[in-house]
Amino acid sequence: MLEIFKGHIAKFAQIPDDEFEEIIKFFDTKEVDKKENLLEEGQICRHHYFVLNGLLRKFFINEKGIEQTTEFAIETWWITDNFAYERKIPSEFYIQAIEKSLILYITQENQEKLLEKFPVMERYFRYIYQRAFAAAQKRIKFLFSLSKEEFYIQAVTNHPEFVQRVPQYLIASYLGFTPEYLSEIRKRHIS
Amino acid sequence: MLEIFKGHIAKFAQIPDDEFEEIIKFFDTKEVDKKENLLEEGQICRHHYFVLNGLLRKFFINEKGIEQTTEFAIETWWITDNFAYERKIPSEFYIQAIEKSLILYITQENQEKLLEKFPVMERYFRYIYQRAFAAAQKRIKFLFSLSKEEFYIQAVTNHPEFVQRVPQYLIASYLGFTPEYLSEIRKRHIS
Repeated sequence: MLEIFKGHIAKFAQIPDDEFEEIIKFFDTKEVDKKENLLEEGQICRHHYFVLNGLLRKFFINEKGIEQTTEFAIETWWITDNFAYERKIPSEFYIQAIEKSLILYITQENQEKLLEKFPVMERYFRYIYQRAFAAAQKRIKFLFSLSKEEFYIQAVTNHPEFVQRVPQYLIASYLGFTPEYLSEIRKRHIS
Repeated sequence: MLEIFKGHIAKFAQIPDDEFEEIIKFFDTKEVDKKENLLEEGQICRHHYFVLNGLLRKFFINEKGIEQTTEFAIETWWITDNFAYERKIPSEFYIQAIEKSLILYITQENQEKLLEKFPVMERYFRYIYQRAFAAAQKRIKFLFSLSKEEFYIQAVTNHPEFVQRVPQYLIASYLGFTPEYLSEIRKRHIS
């Protein structure tokens, strides 16, 4: 399973096998059950998660008591509450497994030590954050510019793998729809 | 003026003076007038901009023909359309000077060469993207969770330097308000 992580690093940075053996020591793995929380609102955000297998989501509970999903993570995606993680402060988010998942994770202290000892990992994480930031900028534009229906079509077109795997009520939550409204849109576009 | 950039790098990475002299050769500077565009919709996004002095904004023109501001950049902030920049594709955004500004900029090719030649700059850019991503995640949460009025109060509290410098109609555009609605909120909170 760790080969997935090794392969992901290799896409961005060149690391010899013996160095990877040292690098991986900074990480731990964890199996999480479906619906299990890796992080809960109010907890100090200590970990950065990389999905080896499975599917996670990040959400917060809004003022109406409804779970608002803001991110998903499938295989080879990183996920955490980055603001709280860097500052080791309590999070406003939950991170939860949608499917039974196998997770690689690192603590903030270990990530710092890893980057000190293996500067080549700066390149890897620079790419991770660069792409994540670009995707977040795109998301912000969508939130302002697309109608709810266009937003759904965009999601289906760009991320068919999610739409297949993620329960409909969670897609509705990510897009800021009610499940009933999503069901209506789907009917219009399937028929 | 380049001391501003040197000081900003020093916050994240240690670079000797003679190395900085080499690093700065990868960049150019440019003076931009108030309302001048550094990037326009449809142009290939070739540059990454760092504000030495002044104030920029990024916006797109929505389907109603209205300018929707999505980002600001003051001194020591980086700004570009990251998605288009990495891929050297046409941008969907404009980047415009709000004040007469002095800008440091680098091309995508030069940024790649710089990172190859000075891997210590990977650390610098890793921090830049890491923080930018964390801020974007926070923004997405605000877009979902706060009422328009709370959103404004949050902006005033967290970024008083913007609210002082940026014309009110641009703050309204950033927050997704009409200028009239912003004016109402301001009256309520100033009185």
